[in-house]
Amino acid sequence: MERGGVTYPEGFDASGLYCGIKAEKKEDLSLIFSKTPCVAAGTFTTNQFKSYSLLWTLRNIKNLVQAVVINSGNANTCNGEENYGYTEQVAESLANITGTKKTSVLVASTGIIGRPIPYEKILDALPELVRTLSPENHTLAARGIMTTDTRPKEFQINTGIKGRHKEVDIGGMVKGAGMINPSMSTMLCFITTDAVIEQDVLKMALKEAVEDSFNMVTVDDDTSTNDMVLCLANGMAKNSRIKEGTEDYNRFLSSLKLLSTELAKMIASDGEGATKMIEVIVKGGWCKKDARRVAKRIAGSNLFKSAVYGADPNWGRIVAAAGSVSARIDVKNTEVSLCGVKVYNGNPVVYDEKKLRNIMEREKKITVEIDIKKGSFSAVAWGCDLTEDYVRINKE
Amino acid sequence: MERGGVTYPEGFDASGLYCGIKAEKKEDLSLIFSKTPCVAAGTFTTNQFKSYSLLWTLRNIKNLVQAVVINSGNANTCNGEENYGYTEQVAESLANITGTKKTSVLVASTGIIGRPIPYEKILDALPELVRTLSPENHTLAARGIMTTDTRPKEFQINTGIKGRHKEVDIGGMVKGAGMINPSMSTMLCFITTDAVIEQDVLKMALKEAVEDSFNMVTVDDDTSTNDMVLCLANGMAKNSRIKEGTEDYNRFLSSLKLLSTELAKMIASDGEGATKMIEVIVKGGWCKKDARRVAKRIAGSNLFKSAVYGADPNWGRIVAAAGSVSARIDVKNTEVSLCGVKVYNGNPVVYDEKKLRNIMEREKKITVEIDIKKGSFSAVAWGCDLTEDYVRINKE
Repeated sequence: MERGGVTYPEGFDASGLYCGIKAEKKEDLSLIFSKTPCVAAGTFTTNQFKSYSLLWTLRNIKNLVQAVVINSGNANTCNGEENYGYTEQVAESLANITGTKKTSVLVASTGIIGRPIPYEKILDALPELVRTLSPENHTLAARGIMTTDTRPKEFQINTGIKGRHKEVDIGGMVKGAGMINPSMSTMLCFITTDAVIEQDVLKMALKEAVEDSFNMVTVDDDTSTNDMVLCLANGMAKNSRIKEGTEDYNRFLSSLKLLSTELAKMIASDGEGATKMIEVIVKGGWCKKDARRVAKRIAGSNLFKSAVYGADPNWGRIVAAAGSVSARIDVKNTEVSLCGVKVYNGNPVVYDEKKLRNIMEREKKITVEIDIKKGSFSAVAWGCDLTEDYVRINKE
Repeated sequence: MERGGVTYPEGFDASGLYCGIKAEKKEDLSLIFSKTPCVAAGTFTTNQFKSYSLLWTLRNIKNLVQAVVINSGNANTCNGEENYGYTEQVAESLANITGTKKTSVLVASTGIIGRPIPYEKILDALPELVRTLSPENHTLAARGIMTTDTRPKEFQINTGIKGRHKEVDIGGMVKGAGMINPSMSTMLCFITTDAVIEQDVLKMALKEAVEDSFNMVTVDDDTSTNDMVLCLANGMAKNSRIKEGTEDYNRFLSSLKLLSTELAKMIASDGEGATKMIEVIVKGGWCKKDARRVAKRIAGSNLFKSAVYGADPNWGRIVAAAGSVSARIDVKNTEVSLCGVKVYNGNPVVYDEKKLRNIMEREKKITVEIDIKKGSFSAVAWGCDLTEDYVRINKE
């Protein structure tokens, strides 16, 4: 085993184990630990009902952070106010074992809402979780945050930014979001880097990266009670501090964007019951927001998602979805391509339907390109097809 | 057979037949005809891509109207600009046969987007459509507007408003909207009345009735390319003209609301693949808009819809949906009941889960009641469960 995911950057260890929250015996508790304190940044759900874990993390993210404890199988949300205290106990207990402060320990949860969380099981498991920390256990940690995900999701990247004896690296792991509509199912992402960077600069970079990646697998800006993206920077690459507007900043940002986009696409491909990923590219937006709205609406349309599942080139559902959002669209000149085949240019285009069907059946990634002809802004959104399995997974 | 649906009010005839648009031999062309000219009012899709039929109707609704021709099986949308001219020809031909003006003939369509419409078949069928007009054929007309609907949907009501020799009646027929999210599938509704009423007053009443009925089976204010609700008033009850702010107006409005609500609920119960109807009652809204938003979001949540299908009392999905919209919510005191059983009051409530499961399995209508504790406004939204059949229907 090698370093990878969240342990790819210098000085980060990880672990994951089964502590007894999930009904089935699968990893349900993970830990990320940095050898040195980190500056941290995060983006959090806008849902008004918030997980107690998330509330704890929101309160402590301004501090220097050394650890993140994550459980799956229980959302720690709407399960009674006493759970905020239990969450604090978990942070405190981990801090005692590792010799840090409880305010340096962040917490995240994902799973069912409204159930009591078996926090004694978590407390009992913490010593073993710390004992098994290692750079090799990043995939165990990625497993420990899974719910209906079918596979762990990790990515890592070298930024090329020079440090004293190594270049700056970024790593990450993510768990997916139901039907790729985090309106109600959780998306958790943990990113680590060994960069030396100001907290404010890290915040700014993370915000921008999230906007074009994770926020483009969401629909209508809904978020679950638990969604969060955290980024920890421990400075162990000993590069000269990354400042806004510099060459190094641009390099860091583009690497962070690439990593976030790759992780976001993994979420889309692994949507509940999904057999195909959908990529919607919108061009010709009057502004960025218009392009984003159209892209997300198409990627989130139940009717189009069902058509993709059936390999049905029903482009009418694409234009109907596009036209239903509040965005400037030149309806007489809008052009639509499906898997590279032009199907609409303001009027229906004659194309080989059987051939396009075959392409849609064969391809694992279905690409929609739509030019709304109002300007020069573009956006990309990701989703997946809607299948009978999605319904089966979610009815119980 | 008796009068009913759109022919319930005095002076309206209807017919419906198969003219060859649908692949399967089922009624696909309907006509509503009034013996005397009507004032008309309508509410129309906000989708930027609009059906040519709808564009024709938008242009002519200000006129005195005598007929509405409706086809199913083809949306007459994005199928080439020449189709506006074809639509006009249909109106003109019907006007010639019936001795009215083409500008008194409204047109509506529902079906697949982007396909050439076989307008010669429609033109050829018009004489027979007119010949078979009768008060008894209202259900044939209701069949002629169906797409994936499993049954015709009609309702009628007596307003109690006195006319010269009869009381004012209202009747209507509707076709449903895919998965009860008209974001991309069409909702058409035709309402008739024999009331004497000013066009402006009719418009006002219709707008208010639609708001609390059809707009509450939609999600996120999306509308298809073809959505419309039309109301024709022919004055044959010879009541004294209904004016704003009068007792008669209130009576007319409340009857119109009742009719619209009943038709809206029929749409919800007959959603594609639906086995259960969902009714979401929101109380305690700071304003009407807040209550509406929360109600619609819950009724439209794929995760909650899937849970209802599985008779799973997963109330976490209800609060998560509620919290994800922009509306004032007292999250610490919000109360939730499911099928009359209190499940959440700011903290989880202990309830008999097995019993609630049994109720959810047995009931055809699943009621959610949520009090968001911020004020005195309430709203009701309707939806249906999400089933494997929905996916099956929509993948081809």
